[in-house]
Amino acid sequence: MTYQTDIEIAESVEMEPITKIADQAGFDKSDIELYGKYKAKVNFTALQKMREAPDGKLILVSAINPTAAGEGKTTTVVGLGDGLKRIGKKAMLALREPSLGPVFGIKGGAAGGGYAQVVPMQDINLHFTGDFHAIGAANNLLAALIDNHIHQGNKLNIDTRKITWKRVVDMNDRQLRHIVNGLGGEKNGVPREDGFDITVASEIMAILCLSNDLNELKEKLREIIIGYNYDDEPVKAGELKAHGAMAALLKDALKPNLVQTLEKTPALIHGGPFANIAHGCNSIMATKLALKYADYTVTEAGFGADLGAEKFIDIKSRMANIAPDAAVIVATVRALKLHGGIAASDLNEENIQAVEEGLPNLLKHIENMQDVFGIPSVVAINKFPTDTEEELHVIRKKCEEIGVNVVLSDVWAKGGKGAEDLAREVVKLCETESTLRHPYSLEDPIPTKIEKLVQKVYGGRGIEISAEAEREITRLVKLGYDKLPICVAKTQYSLSDDPALRGAPKDFHITIQQVKVSAGAGFLVVLTGRVMTMPGLPKIPAAENIDVTPEGKIVGLF
Amino acid sequence: MTYQTDIEIAESVEMEPITKIADQAGFDKSDIELYGKYKAKVNFTALQKMREAPDGKLILVSAINPTAAGEGKTTTVVGLGDGLKRIGKKAMLALREPSLGPVFGIKGGAAGGGYAQVVPMQDINLHFTGDFHAIGAANNLLAALIDNHIHQGNKLNIDTRKITWKRVVDMNDRQLRHIVNGLGGEKNGVPREDGFDITVASEIMAILCLSNDLNELKEKLREIIIGYNYDDEPVKAGELKAHGAMAALLKDALKPNLVQTLEKTPALIHGGPFANIAHGCNSIMATKLALKYADYTVTEAGFGADLGAEKFIDIKSRMANIAPDAAVIVATVRALKLHGGIAASDLNEENIQAVEEGLPNLLKHIENMQDVFGIPSVVAINKFPTDTEEELHVIRKKCEEIGVNVVLSDVWAKGGKGAEDLAREVVKLCETESTLRHPYSLEDPIPTKIEKLVQKVYGGRGIEISAEAEREITRLVKLGYDKLPICVAKTQYSLSDDPALRGAPKDFHITIQQVKVSAGAGFLVVLTGRVMTMPGLPKIPAAENIDVTPEGKIVGLF
Repeated sequence: MTYQTDIEIAESVEMEPITKIADQAGFDKSDIELYGKYKAKVNFTALQKMREAPDGKLILVSAINPTAAGEGKTTTVVGLGDGLKRIGKKAMLALREPSLGPVFGIKGGAAGGGYAQVVPMQDINLHFTGDFHAIGAANNLLAALIDNHIHQGNKLNIDTRKITWKRVVDMNDRQLRHIVNGLGGEKNGVPREDGFDITVASEIMAILCLSNDLNELKEKLREIIIGYNYDDEPVKAGELKAHGAMAALLKDALKPNLVQTLEKTPALIHGGPFANIAHGCNSIMATKLALKYADYTVTEAGFGADLGAEKFIDIKSRMANIAPDAAVIVATVRALKLHGGIAASDLNEENIQAVEEGLPNLLKHIENMQDVFGIPSVVAINKFPTDTEEELHVIRKKCEEIGVNVVLSDVWAKGGKGAEDLAREVVKLCETESTLRHPYSLEDPIPTKIEKLVQKVYGGRGIEISAEAEREITRLVKLGYDKLPICVAKTQYSLSDDPALRGAPKDFHITIQQVKVSAGAGFLVVLTGRVMTMPGLPKIPAAENIDVTPEGKIVGLF
Repeated sequence: MTYQTDIEIAESVEMEPITKIADQAGFDKSDIELYGKYKAKVNFTALQKMREAPDGKLILVSAINPTAAGEGKTTTVVGLGDGLKRIGKKAMLALREPSLGPVFGIKGGAAGGGYAQVVPMQDINLHFTGDFHAIGAANNLLAALIDNHIHQGNKLNIDTRKITWKRVVDMNDRQLRHIVNGLGGEKNGVPREDGFDITVASEIMAILCLSNDLNELKEKLREIIIGYNYDDEPVKAGELKAHGAMAALLKDALKPNLVQTLEKTPALIHGGPFANIAHGCNSIMATKLALKYADYTVTEAGFGADLGAEKFIDIKSRMANIAPDAAVIVATVRALKLHGGIAASDLNEENIQAVEEGLPNLLKHIENMQDVFGIPSVVAINKFPTDTEEELHVIRKKCEEIGVNVVLSDVWAKGGKGAEDLAREVVKLCETESTLRHPYSLEDPIPTKIEKLVQKVYGGRGIEISAEAEREITRLVKLGYDKLPICVAKTQYSLSDDPALRGAPKDFHITIQQVKVSAGAGFLVVLTGRVMTMPGLPKIPAAENIDVTPEGKIVGLF
């Protein structure tokens, strides 16, 4: 068997014109705006006209805590969509857009892999339809308006030491993390400490993904807190009259993007917020659109289920008024062995004990999904050639003891054909009656919300709150931001806040270092440690190997 | 008569689907990539397959030195294209793309005006097809690679005090003019002085506009000098292996954009370099494409003819191997009166003397166009209601004395109908035999080139060179960059380097403050003073009045 790269596989399959995909998905021709032959934006009208139509079933794909071995969550989403189509169901995907920055850092795409990919993958991984550039422009317009306001007399009395709004660039550029700007004398702004984030970390990304329509987007933009004045009161984007122009820049970016899988299943790829300081799932607009036009919508949530799925339930579901009908928890035998404590170099050997010792991580996520959130679930084992029957048996047995089926999925090598069993199981789960449960109530005090998450979802004992976080909580209560949902920024590698604690640790405490409000997006960010919001490039950046032929074909990208 | 804004006029006219415009222009369906219903990119294949076809006629629209009264150069280009179509000619426009930044600063578009507009004007003035965002990304990728290289050990021995490559953002943001970045300790880069330019000032913008194909683009990117090492030798983008990935980011941006005028004339709008530190005209790709598909291509050059047309002749024509068959010099009676020295408040009164005193500015530009460059020319007076017969008579008489016809143009109010006379005159001029002449030879020493420009084109006596510029010239000669064409950065308001000297000053000297090489773009920038490469926002930015309706209609833009 010859080994093919993702890009070779992607190019070996002929795409359908996106007009045909749109037609099959049920979109009117007038609802589609073409971006080349294989990409389209779907107009707001497509969703509006279906307002009264019933929703299809929603399937949320999540995973165990990620390890270096990878779980293949996106690949599973793509393959499951294709699998549903193969067993005769009308399916659509709702996925996140990848960020441009990392493409030039460490080789690797974000559009699935093998025979389970969304295409055109080069476009999706580069500028795509320009959404992230629009978000960057809106973000940086607000920044320019802030500093211009101060330069022109500072009527709002903004304290330049307390500006929290940063500029962004869609590039891994550590040089911009900490800067001093406004230098060069009185004609060139006001000197102050500042910094850049990568575009996906912008609050505008979260806002775009959590808005149900353009008007809500504008209202959320208006509520963004850009910093504080000398009386320590919040200053909002609306006070700078920035929200209208920002919304104008974002009007097309808010429209979901339609592409296809290698097996011609329609895929809406739209928005891509961080899964730590933000909620980590694609836009509400895309998910709702898919729910109206397809019988089965497959979507994913960032990182493991403790972060991604929890935020899907507690933030996105609440704001969109939607609920998953079934959940898929993706795991690999290899990743479970890593959770069981063995070294990466020993992954190719059968090791029943390591699987058994890693299993508690999977079991805890199953418990969360089924019991804490109330979503009927299935475990999908993303198959590797090194997996042994005995290893799989151990997993199957343990899961079935707690009432959850385990299905093998082989989508990388087989595409949708490798997910037909999974598709059938998911269809069955979708028929089960279920009621979504939230681990905390919006009315709970802020510390109680966090405590409930730690105890119910992470399996820990309690929280410790730093003095700084305490002060901030007091201020947020005073400002009336205490009824918002919680967005925990925590390591994705562990259920705890210590990346070294694998499996399912117990009796731990989570330390709350900082609490911040994203008043526009509408959630409280609870930071358990430092979060990197501007990555750097590695010693040998992937950019060095990327090239383009005279005809415009990109090489070296993946 | 009710007064209509540009945007109201634009919206009152129904556009043709761009597929129909493309078809009428002669483009194959397979050569077109749609960006929504009314915008398209034209693939490289469209130009390649016509390589052997003869070129149509090229008409260069330029103007007198601009004044606060405005000349209406872009409006004339649009109206003339429509006028040519009305008299039965197959015409196409080649124009620059507007920058996003200024849209939020001072109200005003860059897509013509009145009944002589290119549409969809909102899109053209906002993200359009994403070209400028792609240029920004390529520019900032190079910047990130530079600082990453230094951070990772600085094998190329780059002197951080001598980095000339700046980051860019497509925003008027004075706060970023002078910064210190790389702060925050050893994990966050290397501290150094730095700054941002606006995207249109990026050398990549000039490179994109001066490349004949994707391969040449990549080769030019490779040659970009990003700064100097500790031995004072230039360090190039190619040494950082950045050019391939940059070209990959630019592969779609290099394709010309097709839109239409209000009268359905096809318009290629592509690229938009500064007219001071760069050459100020649309891309070679767009101009060449228009020449192959239309019988008459109308294009423009930035600022007055001393800067814009001169650079078109000496830089763009040389690199593209094209020559204008006719030139239009746009003037208004009002602007001539300002050149004649009267106050803006007196413009509504007839003033023959002021017209007469302002005329030498126009006459000098006619002389340049006809005699220095050798292009058959016509003067287009862009009509205003306040113009009197007597004022027009004075202009007509003087121009005819030196053998140039004057034609009234009324395109703002009447569209193409207001340019039919001008169209007929232009067609006549295009039949005249002519040979393009360059005011200097590429073989001339650098100071001689500048001197010839001053004496032949500006009408001055000579040059003075600062000590800094002298040193730089010596270095450039040593590095072998002395055979490049010259790109003068000078005030647009005067033929001299003193903005206060109106009309046609004599006996002046131009002071050369600095000389810089744009080794990628392939020209030497000669600076006669400070050039602002990052604008600021005004006290009340236009952004404050821009809004978008729930349906996605933008208001308050123009």
